[in-house]
Amino acid sequence: MEAASSAGLEPVDLLVAAGSGGGEAAAARPGLPAFGGRAAGSGGGGETVAPELLAEVSTLGHPPRVIAVYRRDDLPRGVRPHTLALWHVADPGNVGTLLRSADAFGAGVALSPGCADPTGPKALRASMGALFRVPLCGFDAPEGRRIALVPRGGTPLPELDLSGDVVFVLGAEREGLPRDVLERCDARASIPQSGGAESLNVAMAGTVALYELARRAQDPPA
Amino acid sequence: MEAASSAGLEPVDLLVAAGSGGGEAAAARPGLPAFGGRAAGSGGGGETVAPELLAEVSTLGHPPRVIAVYRRDDLPRGVRPHTLALWHVADPGNVGTLLRSADAFGAGVALSPGCADPTGPKALRASMGALFRVPLCGFDAPEGRRIALVPRGGTPLPELDLSGDVVFVLGAEREGLPRDVLERCDARASIPQSGGAESLNVAMAGTVALYELARRAQDPPA
Repeated sequence: MEAASSAGLEPVDLLVAAGSGGGEAAAARPGLPAFGGRAAGSGGGGETVAPELLAEVSTLGHPPRVIAVYRRDDLPRGVRPHTLALWHVADPGNVGTLLRSADAFGAGVALSPGCADPTGPKALRASMGALFRVPLCGFDAPEGRRIALVPRGGTPLPELDLSGDVVFVLGAEREGLPRDVLERCDARASIPQSGGAESLNVAMAGTVALYELARRAQDPPA
Repeated sequence: MEAASSAGLEPVDLLVAAGSGGGEAAAARPGLPAFGGRAAGSGGGGETVAPELLAEVSTLGHPPRVIAVYRRDDLPRGVRPHTLALWHVADPGNVGTLLRSADAFGAGVALSPGCADPTGPKALRASMGALFRVPLCGFDAPEGRRIALVPRGGTPLPELDLSGDVVFVLGAEREGLPRDVLERCDARASIPQSGGAESLNVAMAGTVALYELARRAQDPPA
């Protein structure tokens, strides 16, 4: 919730556990917008509900004291100069982790149909609040050189030209990228690995690619 | 199971689902050692058991046809020139993912007490068979320069001296590294990130560190 509010998002609804100081605890949390505010449907202080109801709605192991409801349309949308474009990445943990990495490196995330819902509970948790900060867009939206990350056979990532706007295209864990998506990319890159080892997982590969960009930004080649 | 057998490990027990060709399907799997072989307790062909029993034992969503049981002592142990040393990394998914990355980059993994069991179901699955290939050792076992990876304030990873044997020391997701562990390290490194963003998760940080080593091995600085 702090992540959302510091990103300027306000909840459309705020449910606070009744009793045992739930309301006060919530009100005292730093970075929380004034209850009510522009938040619709909460008549000035969040709705107080039975703690059991919150526990029932939540997917967390321990029942939360506060649940904030956000409008999907309020999430940041748009493109950035560097993007991770995910093709059918169906694992929500991977989508969330890639959001977190995009956030760490200042990149955006483009999602194809068939990707895990980034607002689902597992993705949201893995994103550690990055969902509220990283602009999302459709798979084809970002401009710039499209570089397919493939497990092997591509140009070694460290040798690749990464000037200008860059879109790293990542495929599903098992299937990888289908031929038509590969053919629409401008280059193929692979992360140098020891011979014979299995590939990195998709979240690792995307993170390494963004690191390579960050590294060069810091230390431009002579 | 293929991962184990190609790493030279043989199961101490092999349970094969009865009926519907389970035994044949298992026998036909490539890379599987001859049933019986040195496998104890399986009298020459794996033990045939009711499929329901396998489903009950397994943590997988769909019931397996074969379950192989390995001896913990048969897992690879030892050190490599490059190591990820994990301090109290309690999330089994992170431990498994770091094993997978260590495998991809030819590194070893050192575990402190308090780390998730790398042989647990979640870690094993995230490791994608790397558990059978990556040598494990105790936290203090590997020699070489110990470099603590810290979210901020360390030497930027790309600027760090990484010659010789290197041990990257990674802390727990929330708590990071305690002071006494930090003080036993030779250097602190941070991964360059955009200002204000949250940190990478521990699996991302360890993977990026190993990539930086691989990158330099491929392209040594002039």
